[in-house]
Amino acid sequence: MIAILVSAGLSLLVTLFGTPLFIRFLVRREYGQFIRQDGPTAHFTKRGTPTMGGVVIILATMIGYFASHLLIGPGPSISGLLLLFLIVGLGVIGFLDDFIKISRQRSLGLNPAGKLIGQAGVGIAFAYLATQFPNANNRTPASLNISFLRDSNITLAHWGIGIGIVLFIIWANFLITAWSNAVNLTDGLDGLATGASIFVFTAYTIISMWQLNQNCQYLTNPTGACYEVRDPWDLAIVAAALVGACFGFLWWNGSPAQIFMGDTGSLALGGAVAGFSIFTHTQFLAVLIGGLFVIEVISDVIQIGFFKMTRKRVFRMAPLHHHFELKGWGEVTIVIRFWMVAGLFVALGVGLFYGEWVSIS
Amino acid sequence: MIAILVSAGLSLLVTLFGTPLFIRFLVRREYGQFIRQDGPTAHFTKRGTPTMGGVVIILATMIGYFASHLLIGPGPSISGLLLLFLIVGLGVIGFLDDFIKISRQRSLGLNPAGKLIGQAGVGIAFAYLATQFPNANNRTPASLNISFLRDSNITLAHWGIGIGIVLFIIWANFLITAWSNAVNLTDGLDGLATGASIFVFTAYTIISMWQLNQNCQYLTNPTGACYEVRDPWDLAIVAAALVGACFGFLWWNGSPAQIFMGDTGSLALGGAVAGFSIFTHTQFLAVLIGGLFVIEVISDVIQIGFFKMTRKRVFRMAPLHHHFELKGWGEVTIVIRFWMVAGLFVALGVGLFYGEWVSIS
Repeated sequence: MIAILVSAGLSLLVTLFGTPLFIRFLVRREYGQFIRQDGPTAHFTKRGTPTMGGVVIILATMIGYFASHLLIGPGPSISGLLLLFLIVGLGVIGFLDDFIKISRQRSLGLNPAGKLIGQAGVGIAFAYLATQFPNANNRTPASLNISFLRDSNITLAHWGIGIGIVLFIIWANFLITAWSNAVNLTDGLDGLATGASIFVFTAYTIISMWQLNQNCQYLTNPTGACYEVRDPWDLAIVAAALVGACFGFLWWNGSPAQIFMGDTGSLALGGAVAGFSIFTHTQFLAVLIGGLFVIEVISDVIQIGFFKMTRKRVFRMAPLHHHFELKGWGEVTIVIRFWMVAGLFVALGVGLFYGEWVSIS
Repeated sequence: MIAILVSAGLSLLVTLFGTPLFIRFLVRREYGQFIRQDGPTAHFTKRGTPTMGGVVIILATMIGYFASHLLIGPGPSISGLLLLFLIVGLGVIGFLDDFIKISRQRSLGLNPAGKLIGQAGVGIAFAYLATQFPNANNRTPASLNISFLRDSNITLAHWGIGIGIVLFIIWANFLITAWSNAVNLTDGLDGLATGASIFVFTAYTIISMWQLNQNCQYLTNPTGACYEVRDPWDLAIVAAALVGACFGFLWWNGSPAQIFMGDTGSLALGGAVAGFSIFTHTQFLAVLIGGLFVIEVISDVIQIGFFKMTRKRVFRMAPLHHHFELKGWGEVTIVIRFWMVAGLFVALGVGLFYGEWVSIS
């Protein structure tokens, strides 16, 4: 409990006080954002706002996590370290993308092949390692079963462990790519993705703490119902570090944003959502918890799909927040209402998770 | 659990869909807000925005609460009813105030004596009744002990029950007046008080649910630690109804506000905070949970006190949000950052509440 508070508190302090320093550094070097050519024209005024704020978020998360382990103990777990590897790995790819955009003064960054190869490299390494490292109870960070509120009976290892691991690597990479894209698309209005991320990682802090208290390994509850999750205490520390980091960053990223998180931030945070969904065995529950991100990505898919089929547009512009912008809602109105929707999804997701527990215990 | 969800869900639907109808009604009757003469000049543009939105919040809370009891059961408790009485009573006084402002087209409403007498009448009736109605375990809704995280050893009944009840009525009225004023002062920027209220009542939903699960009356935990609180399940239903009502209202009250809650809303919500602090036996913890409201009221007290003593101003303008407005922060920036501060206070408060439980159980 104290380790979780320390982790969240430290990462919060790092982004709260570190972000303005980073902004000053970027402004001095004239590293401003090039706004996408395909967004609403109102966004052209945002040209010049520093980006790559994800760097501070990622650093703060690592500082919060490791300082908490140094100060309070008991030392990192393999689950926590793998999650950080995923966050940092995707963050580095996002950073390269952002950096090329800025230094070459163009709106497009890393070439698509390079980005894809980088993401796949990180994703495959993460997924493979997540199936290794059994603990004393023979539990690995990831399971080869598909999970909703916990592991289902549907296993990827139906045709043997080897094929199971291969299928899991494909499945995990799908999740990582999907969530990274979803957060990336959502990150189009000041503070929107950051605020929604705070809600989602708070949910995962709560879920991990709950899975710790009701873990099959340290089970003290009399009903026998329990969660088969490896290292929930350490997952809670990572999630809390992310909450703190995003919280402090939002101070500066809220409307009017003085800095954007960039692909550095959105890929890392999206990857983190995928990682939590895998390690807490809530792969499909995450679709509800991160519902706002899902809606944004689905609106994009619908728009493109329908346009290709019928040459007509479903939304005035995709992803969804642009649709409301063109409908005349103010940017702040959209952000506040989308935050509320994000909060509602998180409440429903955590409520469902808790409700299932109540019903079976 | 289901009763809590139904209560929150219904009240949310009522304010989400009812508020625009109420706005249309008010606009048609030309009931607009007269902005205080003593606020920043930028606020004069807000003249004309409909007010008295608290009417919808209060109605939605009652509908959520009673519908939940009708649909799910098990029927209201005395604690829940007393809390609703406090909310409605203060809401009516706020409504008279708002209504006189509008119909007489002046910025000042109800005369101070009338307002004070009305508030005292509601407060005294509430406090007296809260010391009655012992249940089978001889527990009344309110306790005569001063409480922090639970009842302390400091009792108001030191010189006998009769004097204890009198002292409690005075103490409860101080809390009600203080909290009503605090929320009223905070309600000066679009969505600020509504958003902060969502956090605070969410905290009280969680605290009440926790006090229900660890209640001395239905105790199932093996350590023997428990909470001596009457009707926590029903307090959770009221709190959830308030969360839902404020949430749906914020949809329309967020920047740019299409309606204000008015004194109708702020007195009622402030009274509710006081009521929860009394009924959940967390009178001093509430100062942390509702920290944003407390800071706002303290900034006002400091400003007035220092000015009377030294003729100098500590803040450019009080309450605190006006200070930052005059410092040049945008209204939206202040609201978002103050929401974050409110959220942080709530996290600290709930964390402390949970931490104490962990440490003693």
